[in-house]
Amino acid sequence: MELRKISEHIGKWFSGSGPMSDIVISSRIRLARNIAGYEFVSNCSQESQAIILEKLKEVLMGLDLSQKVSYICVDKAGQLDKDFLVERHLISRLHAQSKALRGVVIAADEMFTAMINEEDHLRIQVLMPGLQLFQCWEQLNRIDDIIEQHIEYAFDSRLGYLTACPTNIGTGIRVSVMLHLPALKITGHLEKFFNAARDMNLAVRGLFGEGTEAVGDFFQISNQTTLGVKEEDIVKKFSDVIIPEIVGYEKLAREQLFEKKKNMINDKIYRAMGILSNAQMISSSEAMFLLSHLRLGVNLKKIDNLSIDKINELFLLTQPAHLQLNSGGPLSQDDRDELRAKIIRNCLNQN
Amino acid sequence: MELRKISEHIGKWFSGSGPMSDIVISSRIRLARNIAGYEFVSNCSQESQAIILEKLKEVLMGLDLSQKVSYICVDKAGQLDKDFLVERHLISRLHAQSKALRGVVIAADEMFTAMINEEDHLRIQVLMPGLQLFQCWEQLNRIDDIIEQHIEYAFDSRLGYLTACPTNIGTGIRVSVMLHLPALKITGHLEKFFNAARDMNLAVRGLFGEGTEAVGDFFQISNQTTLGVKEEDIVKKFSDVIIPEIVGYEKLAREQLFEKKKNMINDKIYRAMGILSNAQMISSSEAMFLLSHLRLGVNLKKIDNLSIDKINELFLLTQPAHLQLNSGGPLSQDDRDELRAKIIRNCLNQN
Repeated sequence: MELRKISEHIGKWFSGSGPMSDIVISSRIRLARNIAGYEFVSNCSQESQAIILEKLKEVLMGLDLSQKVSYICVDKAGQLDKDFLVERHLISRLHAQSKALRGVVIAADEMFTAMINEEDHLRIQVLMPGLQLFQCWEQLNRIDDIIEQHIEYAFDSRLGYLTACPTNIGTGIRVSVMLHLPALKITGHLEKFFNAARDMNLAVRGLFGEGTEAVGDFFQISNQTTLGVKEEDIVKKFSDVIIPEIVGYEKLAREQLFEKKKNMINDKIYRAMGILSNAQMISSSEAMFLLSHLRLGVNLKKIDNLSIDKINELFLLTQPAHLQLNSGGPLSQDDRDELRAKIIRNCLNQN
Repeated sequence: MELRKISEHIGKWFSGSGPMSDIVISSRIRLARNIAGYEFVSNCSQESQAIILEKLKEVLMGLDLSQKVSYICVDKAGQLDKDFLVERHLISRLHAQSKALRGVVIAADEMFTAMINEEDHLRIQVLMPGLQLFQCWEQLNRIDDIIEQHIEYAFDSRLGYLTACPTNIGTGIRVSVMLHLPALKITGHLEKFFNAARDMNLAVRGLFGEGTEAVGDFFQISNQTTLGVKEEDIVKKFSDVIIPEIVGYEKLAREQLFEKKKNMINDKIYRAMGILSNAQMISSSEAMFLLSHLRLGVNLKKIDNLSIDKINELFLLTQPAHLQLNSGGPLSQDDRDELRAKIIRNCLNQN
């Protein structure tokens, strides 16, 4: 897989399509699995790691996904390539930083990935644009079943699937939905929403998952309970209750803003447009912040001639590793800030 | 004088013309005078104040200035009108706030004004665009001589002209030059410049004189010594040494910025343009700050189709009292911020 080739586009899951796509960026489900008879990655010898890697790679590369599937050897990848894979949500930050022999299998449309020797021997995920958790689950479950025909998973009849971290034990499932919540942020209701989420045992994180701050009003909400609950029940609860409820709050906040603070919200949207189409240097976090307001502007039909997928593309293509990979190599921060501003300007002034 | 009529335009002294007008906004000289035989304003009875007012008004209104001259009774003026006169530099903040019977005589081109019963019985000033101190002095001296043919000034053969505040005693002259110093501000050299000015016994103030903060990188520099120095010497020192030196520093700072921080300076200029032509609400101080960068952009030939006098006009017309007077009456802060943004947007998007 030639990273430079894919770095000029966005993954299909980030295309801004799918149900509720004005607020729901993407749906993601991953399963954590380990091979029976081997220690978890952190306790595992290099030899065992190599065996696990080979076994899983063989099975995964043999999957019939009706599209090209590539393997990237993460332990041999350069820092820029690893950062790129993290920015693109193809591997986790942990997978990029770990010392194990490890790799990732990626489907051409980037909607399916499988990390080998991350925290667990195997982490498979399906990512889709908009709210499509049932579809994610259906596809992921099917792939999981196929893998299980070739690999004996570490499984306990009482506990379920065994995982390196107890928070994943049982089903090993993590359901995550990435949401764009600018109106809840602007109206100051986010704190309430976070507290409610915590009460429901949900985790709220920023755009790039665990340990990252929420930038640009994007929030990833995911389950924390994996034991004693059926996978379908978690998916159903997310899809039918939790996400529609949050989406409802964000919509209400947008309506309220529009009714009571029309000028304030218009000001934020048009300023974002003004700065982004004129700045000559811009940091990653300022770009995210302003692109978020621009995205809201498109959703509220305040900005014409600009599509959500164009904005999503800008979000991704202006991330540090994407910028550098697309420009051919490492860049200083000043050079990145300049290039980022130029890419955004060119895109917005085209429209 | 109908304030609403003049409120839609800028005074001639603010027209952005005159020598060194890329950096020197305006030159101003004022003289402080008192009538012999009367107490200074602060100790003066209302009856005496009325007599002084009548005497001076008569002389001043009779001056042949080859243009229409108007009188405004400041003690009976409404708050908005007084704020308007201060914003326009036609009266001082002190004159607006004082309790004395008082008024101001204003020439139609606003380059000559005479405040009656401010701190002193009479304060006459001539304001001109760019660096024109000799011209200001010539005109002011001529007017002062004519007044003295009708009025006996309080004068002491040893001390010179007597004034309410000892800092004005002697010549009663204050020479002030308003400068636009964005590059010295950006490069962080302003502090050095302020210290040097203080060492030379000069005062540095913001756009609206005494007690006001410098907003939008505009600084007013003036003499503090009035005793034991000839008026012509002060004017000559300002015109030939002090101001050209500061202008030289600002020019150097602009060149350095342009050489070493081209992107940073371009970024500031284009961002200012982007925000000002898109914002839907903007505070007075943010507008000043950004218009200052825009002014620098026009001076550096980065911005086409926009003249310095248009920018100066925006500076003045978006001040709170100007906004309100032009819109027909008092406005809330939100309404002012909206109207200000609209006026700026309309002006910039015309170009």
